[in-house]
Amino acid sequence: MSTTAIWIDGRVADAVSALDRGLHYGDGLFETIACSGGRAQLLPLHLARLRRGCERLDLPVPAEQTLRREIDAALEAEPEAVLKLILTRGSAAGRGYAYPPGQPARRLLLRYPRSAPDPAAAVAGVRVRLGRLRLGENPALAGIKHLNRLEQVLARRECSDAAIAESLLFSAGGALVSGTMSNVFLVRAGALATPRLERCGVEGVMRATVAQLAVAAGIDCREAQLGPDDLAQAEEIFLTNALIGIHPVRELAGRELSVGPRTQQLQRRLAQHLATEAGRG
Amino acid sequence: MSTTAIWIDGRVADAVSALDRGLHYGDGLFETIACSGGRAQLLPLHLARLRRGCERLDLPVPAEQTLRREIDAALEAEPEAVLKLILTRGSAAGRGYAYPPGQPARRLLLRYPRSAPDPAAAVAGVRVRLGRLRLGENPALAGIKHLNRLEQVLARRECSDAAIAESLLFSAGGALVSGTMSNVFLVRAGALATPRLERCGVEGVMRATVAQLAVAAGIDCREAQLGPDDLAQAEEIFLTNALIGIHPVRELAGRELSVGPRTQQLQRRLAQHLATEAGRG
Repeated sequence: MSTTAIWIDGRVADAVSALDRGLHYGDGLFETIACSGGRAQLLPLHLARLRRGCERLDLPVPAEQTLRREIDAALEAEPEAVLKLILTRGSAAGRGYAYPPGQPARRLLLRYPRSAPDPAAAVAGVRVRLGRLRLGENPALAGIKHLNRLEQVLARRECSDAAIAESLLFSAGGALVSGTMSNVFLVRAGALATPRLERCGVEGVMRATVAQLAVAAGIDCREAQLGPDDLAQAEEIFLTNALIGIHPVRELAGRELSVGPRTQQLQRRLAQHLATEAGRG
Repeated sequence: MSTTAIWIDGRVADAVSALDRGLHYGDGLFETIACSGGRAQLLPLHLARLRRGCERLDLPVPAEQTLRREIDAALEAEPEAVLKLILTRGSAAGRGYAYPPGQPARRLLLRYPRSAPDPAAAVAGVRVRLGRLRLGENPALAGIKHLNRLEQVLARRECSDAAIAESLLFSAGGALVSGTMSNVFLVRAGALATPRLERCGVEGVMRATVAQLAVAAGIDCREAQLGPDDLAQAEEIFLTNALIGIHPVRELAGRELSVGPRTQQLQRRLAQHLATEAGRG
């Protein structure tokens, strides 16, 4: 397992300008991409979210060809990896929040070792708690994967129990949003529901993939305003993100849950989907 | 006027680790400090806010002696300057929001040229608009000057009219909060009011100074929940921050305001206060 390798704007580097607006303001975006067999999984969805984020932040979108070439190059030496792609608005010319229009994005690509998947978590499920921190609501920043992640840092530190895999978070208004690093789905009477993310949260690429697979399988799947009652009434709960895929929740805040048929069905469909995607070369 | 000079942990540098958690998550704090005659103005207030921020983020507070020494050294070659002090949680060991407890803060000190004060703005006042972006509410992050500043970047870009000095912002709940880079005071019947900042906004060091000067002068000054009606009824409005001091508002969203006696009285008291502080050497 190698240490982290880093490229900035396509060149090997280990440091970034101390004037970078990503550092000063969190003025940028990121994607965390699971890679296997030298291939970046769900790359079109990652790139589409990055484009949406760039549009929202008024950040020029890097050429897709450039991003794909740099990703491919990063995976040559290490085909099993996690890539983190960060885009920032580059270096600030002076102080202050204003920026010159059209300043191209700076690309940071970091390659991390990919830890082996945890079959116990995928099969038997994970234990989850309810977070105390409430997420602030801002439609201007909701959905995109921007670099302002202090809420997640603070929520993550609420629990240092290694046996607890994730904390589910609510918005300031009391709506269920997501985990600190995952999206959440509830199953009731065979139908799926996942929180709407218009006011906070990140639109996960795995969330979109699972929703699409559900619809293709004829499973009712909707985005909804969800709260504690919905959690209490859920027959199955599972978490998604680009790295874990689907992890069933086997315990939520002390309540035991069984790993149910819908969750397992979607895990099988996801495995097929990723295998098909990989087969396409 | 020199270009920007940068020190990281006391050493001249121009780049920071690409693994810095300030870049990845905005996991850190900053202070922007006006410096004159080789002296950092309102430094005890800046350091106190930094301590409050460190406590909130569970970030070890750097030794005050170290910070003061590095600030003094930075001002030796350029006694008239703006210093920006950034603290981050240093480099991440791996991916993810969790951090090892007690990881010392990384100190970035940036020295910028200080532009000459704008007497027209201080005397005749500035033009201000109402921002469209609503600030998300999160008591866990309110008050401190953390590095998650995308809301300010987005609010700042709403207006590129150089004749407009600032945008006043409201919270998601509709309360007046502050400008994008300043606090705001309203005067009515001789009394001062400034927005409460329990749910969003930054507790400015100049805001605290002005409030203290007002109280010392026997002027009623309170923090309050304020809204558009309070703005409409205000007889005087002024902005504060560490660099501008007090700027009267002479126009708010097309409504003309006069530079009133309370604002001018506090400007005089502030000038005396800063002169006394400087005289203390």
